[in-house]
This record gives sequence, C-alpha cells and structure tokens, in this order.
Amino acid sequence: MIALSEAADFLRRRDNFLILTHQYPDGDTLGSACGLCLALQEMGKAAKVLCSDEIPAKYQFLFSGIKNQEFKAQTIISVDVADAKLLGEALDCYKDKIDLCIDHHASNKHYAKRSYVDADAAAAAQIICELVDLLGIKMSADIAKCLYTGISTDTGCFKYSNTTAKTHQIAARLLGAGIDHANINRQMFDIKSKEKVALEKRVLETLEFDFGGRCAMICLTTAMIKESGAREDELEGFASIPRKIAGVLVGITIREKSDGVFKISIRSDERIDASNICARFEGGGHRCAAGCTISGELSEVRRKILAAVKEEMERHL
Amino acid sequence: MIALSEAADFLRRRDNFLILTHQYPDGDTLGSACGLCLALQEMGKAAKVLCSDEIPAKYQFLFSGIKNQEFKAQTIISVDVADAKLLGEALDCYKDKIDLCIDHHASNKHYAKRSYVDADAAAAAQIICELVDLLGIKMSADIAKCLYTGISTDTGCFKYSNTTAKTHQIAARLLGAGIDHANINRQMFDIKSKEKVALEKRVLETLEFDFGGRCAMICLTTAMIKESGAREDELEGFASIPRKIAGVLVGITIREKSDGVFKISIRSDERIDASNICARFEGGGHRCAAGCTISGELSEVRRKILAAVKEEMERHL
Repeated sequence: MIALSEAADFLRRRDNFLILTHQYPDGDTLGSACGLCLALQEMGKAAKVLCSDEIPAKYQFLFSGIKNQEFKAQTIISVDVADAKLLGEALDCYKDKIDLCIDHHASNKHYAKRSYVDADAAAAAQIICELVDLLGIKMSADIAKCLYTGISTDTGCFKYSNTTAKTHQIAARLLGAGIDHANINRQMFDIKSKEKVALEKRVLETLEFDFGGRCAMICLTTAMIKESGAREDELEGFASIPRKIAGVLVGITIREKSDGVFKISIRSDERIDASNICARFEGGGHRCAAGCTISGELSEVRRKILAAVKEEMERHL
Repeated sequence: MIALSEAADFLRRRDNFLILTHQYPDGDTLGSACGLCLALQEMGKAAKVLCSDEIPAKYQFLFSGIKNQEFKAQTIISVDVADAKLLGEALDCYKDKIDLCIDHHASNKHYAKRSYVDADAAAAAQIICELVDLLGIKMSADIAKCLYTGISTDTGCFKYSNTTAKTHQIAARLLGAGIDHANINRQMFDIKSKEKVALEKRVLETLEFDFGGRCAMICLTTAMIKESGAREDELEGFASIPRKIAGVLVGITIREKSDGVFKISIRSDERIDASNICARFEGGGHRCAAGCTISGELSEVRRKILAAVKEEMERHL
C-alpha cells in the first residue's frame, strides 16, 4: 500500500500510460479510467484506456475528449480492478506487469507493484477525483463528467449505504465543473431498451409469493430471454425486483444459464442471512445479497431453494 | 419577500406554531415541516405539523421525535406550498392567516404576510437546512432525517436537473449527522406494494409504439386500477414509464379518471414541445412534461392524441 501522494508522484515521473479496466466494464471502471486518462493527457503525457470487452454504447460518451495517441507503453495502471483475473482475456497478458493499482474494493488482491486501496471510497472515481487535485490538474467538465458517472453508477445515484458525506462533497465539486448530470443519470438509470421492457413484463408474469408474502420469486428462462431479444448486459437489474415489493424479506431470482442449470440470486432483509441459504448449494456472497447454482428440473430447483429459504426464515423470525 | 435572516428573527420572536403542508403531501412538504417543527421544539417553543390529507404510511417515520404539544396557535407557517389553494380543504380556514411562507416554487403566489422563496433551492427542505443553521440549532439526526427525505424525494435522489452543487453540500452535512440514508432511499424509491407491481404488469401489456418507435403509449383504465387494488397515491410514477424506453421521444400515458374521461400525460424529448400538444386540448404544462383531459371513447381519445403528437413531431423533426 502506498499513499495517494506517492501515487501522484509516480504518475508525475512516468509517461506513456496504459490504463486497464475490469472485464464486463461498468460506469466506475470506465469513468475512473477515462477521467485519469484525460488528466494525464492534460499533463502533456501519452495515455490510453484499454478494456477486454467492447465498450457498451451507454458508456461511449466517457471517451469523448480523449485524444487518440500512438505510443510505446511504459507504465501500466489498473483502476477499479480488485483481482488481476478480472482484467479479462484480452488484458490477461498485463496481469504480472501492473505498475500501479488504484481501487476501492476491500477485497483487493494487491497484485500490482504499487497499490492504493481506499475501501471507504464509494467508487474508484472518488479516489481519482482526489488524485486529480493532488496532481494540480484543473477539474474540466470532461474529467468531471467521467468521475461523476463513476460515482453515480457505483452508488445507485447516491442511494446506497456506500455513499458518504465525502461522496456528496466530491459530487458538489463535480457539478460545479458544469456537467449535465441529469442527462448522465437519465442515460445510466432510466433508459432501457424495448426488449428489456418486454422481458420485464414476461418476468412479472412469473412472480409468485410464499410464506405469507415474506418471500417473492421470479424466473427468467433462456426461452424468455431469447424471445424478448434482451442483451446479456441488460439482465443485471432483475435480481433486485422481488425484494422491492413491500413486505418481502427474501427475494429470489432464478435464471436459467443453460439447459438444466439455474443461477439463483437471493436478496434479503438484514434479519435473514442470504449467504447461509446459498452456502447450502456451494454458493456464497454477503448477508443481504448472495448467489448459487442449482442443476435439475426448474420445478425441483424451485422446491429446493424454497425449502432452504424456509429453514433460514424459521431460524431467524 | 423577506431575507432568510428576517424569517429566522421572526421565528425567534414568536411562539405556538402551526406548520402547514400542501395537500396530497410529498416528502418535501412533510420533511420540511417536520424538520422545522423539531427545530422549533428544540428552541423550547410549541409547534405542530398539520396536513389536510392523511399522512401516507411511508412518511410516518418523519414524525418520530416530534413531541405532541397542546397549545393555542399564535403563528401560522406554510412550507413548500406555492398557492394557498394547495392547503386543501381541512386547512382552507388558514388561507388568509399565513404569517410566514417558506417555499422554493418560482410560481409562488405570495399569499402570506411574509414570504421567503428561493427558486434555486432543489427542495424546500434545502432552505429549512439553511434556516436551522441561522437559528443556531444543532443538526440532530432526527432533523437531518426529515430534511434529507425532503431533498432526496424532490430531486429523485439527486438525479434531476434541480440538484445543484449546494444540494450536494447540504446532503454531505445531513449524512454527517448520522442518518440511515440508504434505508430512507429504499423506502422512498424502491419499495412498492404487490398491488402496484400487479398494475405495472397489467399496464405493460397495453404498451404500444408508434411513429417508428419514437412514440410509446400506455393506458390505465379504472377497471385495471380497481382489479389490481393499487391505491390512488401509487399511480404517480406510471406517467414516466413510456419515455424511459430507448429511442422514445414522446411518451403518452392515458389514464381513465371516470367513465369516458381520460387524463393524458405527455413526457417528451427537448425537441418536442409537450405543452403545445396538450394546449390543443386545453391542457398545458412544461416543454417536456404536460397534461390535458380528453373525453370520449378510449379508441377515439387515442386517435386524437396520436394525431396531435404526429403533427408536433412533423413540425420539429
């Protein structure tokens, strides 16, 4: 672990940066990488953002303002990447060559030559914001747009418990740089494809309640997903649907991954340990959000997971 | 218009406060009123919050911490009430007796003896926060909980364009007072009743697209609402559903108010003036959000509104 001022000194000394993001990129890894890239270019250095996966259309605006530069890489940085494995296939060649890792995951594996990890930061972009200040770079609207996107997406627009007073202070500064935060948030949180809406409707038809309304369950089969035309990266929000219903303590989402193999996501109230439920099927996670995989007929899978939920509920309520 | 410091002086001089909210109360009018009530009680004064309507269950937590006091009213205050008409039936008797109005609506009618209106404030609760400081009252967790709820609900959890750098600075202070903001946001934004979910599913079945996917329309009939069991106060979010679909420039929500009478809500992209569309049916509103009422058979109402949308789209695209 180095201090953030040491990370700033390191960046000042070096040049020709590759900034690596994690696979299946989200707003924080891309916002952090693009914000840092813009800051380094502003310092007169050469820098480029790399990702193993294609950049989803909704995040492409983060790259506007970045100059396309040709150079021989000298310094490799990773942002928001807790484990070198998460760099993905295309960036796997860099896994032993990371000069500096900047991250906010407590679980960071310290795979880089130098790491700065602040687990209290709501987003990696919050750290990049402090770094930009340490480097004495002016917070331009382009940099602010990237860092705001990182913070907003990782906090559910300041909704989640990872948001702190400092997160809001930094957001105040970023809004002061003159960004169109309302449009960013609309693109990040509101807009969904016709296909996703069609799948939502179909999934709501599978909604069922158990244990006097304290448990709600939805199913996504491969047939339903295929029929709707929804993309893989549009399936993430579904796991939170059942637990949003009033009175529901345990929300279960069953998603068919391949024939006879089902991925189960559990979201639970504080009183019930979702990771305990999933541990029975060799899964795991956190107290209020966990997952596991169960194989078999759908009806059998439902019966098994409901039985496990029932036992856990009886133990705690 | 008085200065906020004059409002603070006025509160210091007076006692026995009735704090009035607007009808169909929301998080901002209730959060502002309860926050101010707590601050006044903290100053050793008697104060009480009044509302024409019943307090929805989700807002009842705002009243915890308020002492129930018996007193003869001496000073009448309204918060977040742009027009005395909006006090509603039960509070109509106070409409000519308001000593001080604190509000953030540019459209405020200045019906009170003294008014402080800051149209740049994202929420009335943002003004109450400044007032609490001017009064020299410590920002307790109870007061902060109320003011945070007001700000969060009026900004869509900091999502909308009314959020400013100052809004985030104030949110930073409120989080510093030790509130469970994640739980507040969950209750305000995520939780919905089984009945509302059932209605959503039903409404998605009516979703249709026109003009090459640039217009989306949903319908809520009284039969659908009745069948689902959803409450009147749960119907508000529906009008935003169609415009959230990618590629949709005009979102139309048709809601049956009574037999043969339909309320139309239009949400539009900047390029299309929703208030122009609604003006053809003697309605109105803002450029991107407007409404009107059309009577007739549902099929005829749909035809009329689509024809009006088509003309407006052709004019601007």
